[in-house]
Amino acid sequence: MALPARRLPSVLRVAGKSFEYPALRSCAGIGHRSFTATSKWRLRTKEMDEDMLKSLRVNRGRLMEDLHYTSQWGTGARWGEAPTETGMSRLALSDADKKARDWFVETTQALGCKTTVDAMGNIFAVRPGLRNDLPPTYAGSHLDTQPTGGRYDGVLGVTAGVEMLKVLADNWVETEYPVGVVNWTNEEGARFPISMVSSGVWAGSVPLETAHNLKEVLPGTKTMKEELRRIGYLGSTPASYEAMPMAAHFELHIEQGPLLEMSNKKIGVVKGVQAYKWFTVHIKGRDTHTGTTDLKSRADALLAASKMIVHSHRLATAHSALASTGILNLSPGSTNTVPGDVTFSLDIRSPSDATVTRMKQAILEDFQKIAAGEDVMGSNENCTSGLPLTVTITEDFSSPATLFDTDCITTVSSASHCVLGPNSNNLLMEMTSGAGHDSVYTSKRCPTSMIFVPCREGVSHNPEEFCKEEDCALGADVLLQSVIRFDRVRGERRVSWKQEPYTL
Amino acid sequence: MALPARRLPSVLRVAGKSFEYPALRSCAGIGHRSFTATSKWRLRTKEMDEDMLKSLRVNRGRLMEDLHYTSQWGTGARWGEAPTETGMSRLALSDADKKARDWFVETTQALGCKTTVDAMGNIFAVRPGLRNDLPPTYAGSHLDTQPTGGRYDGVLGVTAGVEMLKVLADNWVETEYPVGVVNWTNEEGARFPISMVSSGVWAGSVPLETAHNLKEVLPGTKTMKEELRRIGYLGSTPASYEAMPMAAHFELHIEQGPLLEMSNKKIGVVKGVQAYKWFTVHIKGRDTHTGTTDLKSRADALLAASKMIVHSHRLATAHSALASTGILNLSPGSTNTVPGDVTFSLDIRSPSDATVTRMKQAILEDFQKIAAGEDVMGSNENCTSGLPLTVTITEDFSSPATLFDTDCITTVSSASHCVLGPNSNNLLMEMTSGAGHDSVYTSKRCPTSMIFVPCREGVSHNPEEFCKEEDCALGADVLLQSVIRFDRVRGERRVSWKQEPYTL
Repeated sequence: MALPARRLPSVLRVAGKSFEYPALRSCAGIGHRSFTATSKWRLRTKEMDEDMLKSLRVNRGRLMEDLHYTSQWGTGARWGEAPTETGMSRLALSDADKKARDWFVETTQALGCKTTVDAMGNIFAVRPGLRNDLPPTYAGSHLDTQPTGGRYDGVLGVTAGVEMLKVLADNWVETEYPVGVVNWTNEEGARFPISMVSSGVWAGSVPLETAHNLKEVLPGTKTMKEELRRIGYLGSTPASYEAMPMAAHFELHIEQGPLLEMSNKKIGVVKGVQAYKWFTVHIKGRDTHTGTTDLKSRADALLAASKMIVHSHRLATAHSALASTGILNLSPGSTNTVPGDVTFSLDIRSPSDATVTRMKQAILEDFQKIAAGEDVMGSNENCTSGLPLTVTITEDFSSPATLFDTDCITTVSSASHCVLGPNSNNLLMEMTSGAGHDSVYTSKRCPTSMIFVPCREGVSHNPEEFCKEEDCALGADVLLQSVIRFDRVRGERRVSWKQEPYTL
Repeated sequence: MALPARRLPSVLRVAGKSFEYPALRSCAGIGHRSFTATSKWRLRTKEMDEDMLKSLRVNRGRLMEDLHYTSQWGTGARWGEAPTETGMSRLALSDADKKARDWFVETTQALGCKTTVDAMGNIFAVRPGLRNDLPPTYAGSHLDTQPTGGRYDGVLGVTAGVEMLKVLADNWVETEYPVGVVNWTNEEGARFPISMVSSGVWAGSVPLETAHNLKEVLPGTKTMKEELRRIGYLGSTPASYEAMPMAAHFELHIEQGPLLEMSNKKIGVVKGVQAYKWFTVHIKGRDTHTGTTDLKSRADALLAASKMIVHSHRLATAHSALASTGILNLSPGSTNTVPGDVTFSLDIRSPSDATVTRMKQAILEDFQKIAAGEDVMGSNENCTSGLPLTVTITEDFSSPATLFDTDCITTVSSASHCVLGPNSNNLLMEMTSGAGHDSVYTSKRCPTSMIFVPCREGVSHNPEEFCKEEDCALGADVLLQSVIRFDRVRGERRVSWKQEPYTL
């Protein structure tokens, strides 16, 4: 598409590299311009051609500076010599989180955004577009971290959103519709033990009262509401998709797994989030003395648990699924007492709901057999049969498979091809997220998809979590391009939407 | 052997059933008679015939009364309706233990014993014999219990020793040599974490300073010496087999295993204590997200630990030995994080030192293979190969097989046949103790053996630990008979002794 005469394409095509108009530069980022007052010096997203669009790129240095700058609040364990080589420990609604939030509000307001805080402390920073009667297209993620987390999980998504706002400001881009960045509260569930709780309230999936009354993990005793109030982020706007509607939600995140790195890819186009179920398995045997009880007179709950853990791995292998045990507690816990009581967690996942259901069935049946002393897939081979045990299996949580919006996926895919250039087919892969994200909840109420970037050895929730600057910037470019491209198309045609159709 | 004229066999043959001499009865138990001052009304053990000897039986009601009476100090969890249906929680050197000790000292002194407390708080109560220049023959065990223990473990041995003193007093029995009862300190190792520590000091196997400086388990901070002093049981006599020599040590104990009950036997003639080794196994993998890490990209320390625990059980089955894991800790401990760090205890036992050594070799080799991802006895069958892990195995404790003294074993065997009567061959079994006892340490310095009685379902270290009154009394009878029989023979012939020959 030819550029209208009133634009200055020769300048804007080298965006981020050279600015010929000092007067404009001095305005960029101060945030008090009204984008709807005049159309002079503005570039409408709809009027950009592909080259123009492509030329909009994030400032990598500035992005990394923001990311590392915010890491001063809640700095975690050091793992390397360089100043940035520490992890993060920024629990939701802590003093450190308040400072990061304040930075987010001040920075986005300075970029011309209006910020709204809802009843869950979710912060919506919205940059007006040409038409402000319809909901914004959002980039979003979270600023809270695990207690022994890294610098990238969540934080990259929010700082890339802020960088997007800076690029739009720098280049006088005027979007068709408003564009926003959202910081979701307590995504990690590390301090208040429900993950993604605040996007859950927004989506209507978690009752507000449940979330407000959620107590922090021991030894603390504060509720979310108390802490929201204490740090000044208990907003008056309802935490709801109705009060704060979204046209779309795009989330940039580190993969938190090894697939991109192992296959030398740069961008993951995320098509959905796999299904998962969490169980608590409780085995009851009998405490007996290790020295005086022969093998056949034992009801050894830990031996049974070990067989079940190995068996769950075999079932996962057979079903091309995942099975993991992250918690195991036993009683009484003495070197010379066979434990009579073991409780362990079991987390099963698959992109397919049907597979998760089949895995669950197999586990329910096979664990009973193992407890009763029967052989299942060789579990008793070369073993001595002991006394029977009892096992009870409780399903604690179930998250069905999430399929992201096809238009959003297409948008991310086009954006990735644009950013990655001629070799893009070799540098991107479609994938399913293994972990839950706020996008799982937004996807229930608006078109959503995600962008993954590789992280070193797939390590996450760990101080050594690391994503190369180059990859952070590529991901942020794809996020920027996705939001702009979505903004361009949403006015042109009805973007499909499966659950509660939106007026886009 | 014909009874000398100065005895009163017609009375003594019905010992415990009818006493014709009120004057004698009123003296019994007051403890201030000198047993060497006059020989009138006395029965010398050496002069008893088999019938006479056999007639000496414990008073079952009185024995149970003592056992339950002492349970008022440190009463544990209730498991039944009856007044005696509670467990025990009498940690070593606690206020409750002090009261039980005070009872022991007062009761044995009232029975004519001299009591000596050594530097480890071991209490030796000695009833004089005809010749007091040589060491006493002892019955011994312990009054401390596990925190969630029962009424019989240790306590039965001590109260049966006290009952033995009462029977001797009731019947005016005069032993050839002194006879004693010993209460060993902190046998359980539950409060101060070295089992049998005070008999270990006595035997010269544990340095006094190590034991004195031993700190109680967390969250406490007191040392053994501080607590010995606080409760008034830090004696001035050295804790040593040289200062407090023993001619022999007989210990009555519940089996703590199911073998006697399962085979309908009443008495276990214990020939020794099996060998055992304790290991700490530490597996280092990598913490990763359960949802984002495919099975082959994991270094799952808990999966590896589960394979090792199952494998140790297979090895134990193959070697007719025992392998048990009673403690397992993992890190970081979150439902959605694959644990990168697992530590577990491994306890291996066999009556044969050679078998324990072979088991150790196999474990050292096979655990390395399992950590490296190799298959060992089907450990990897139907599994997905993950990343290699590292494993380090530390041997924390090794106790070689203990063989009790053949003369003591023979003595217990004769005593059992006497007590059990015509059907004795069907009611006793020779066995090896699976658990350690103070007798392991005494056996290093004096002829030793043990007597086992059945306990319900082999349960011990549990409030529901239970031994029938009938069985308690049978065991106490065998203890009494063993001590008297040993006293009879030790003057007649040289009792063999393998390590440091004693003048008996």
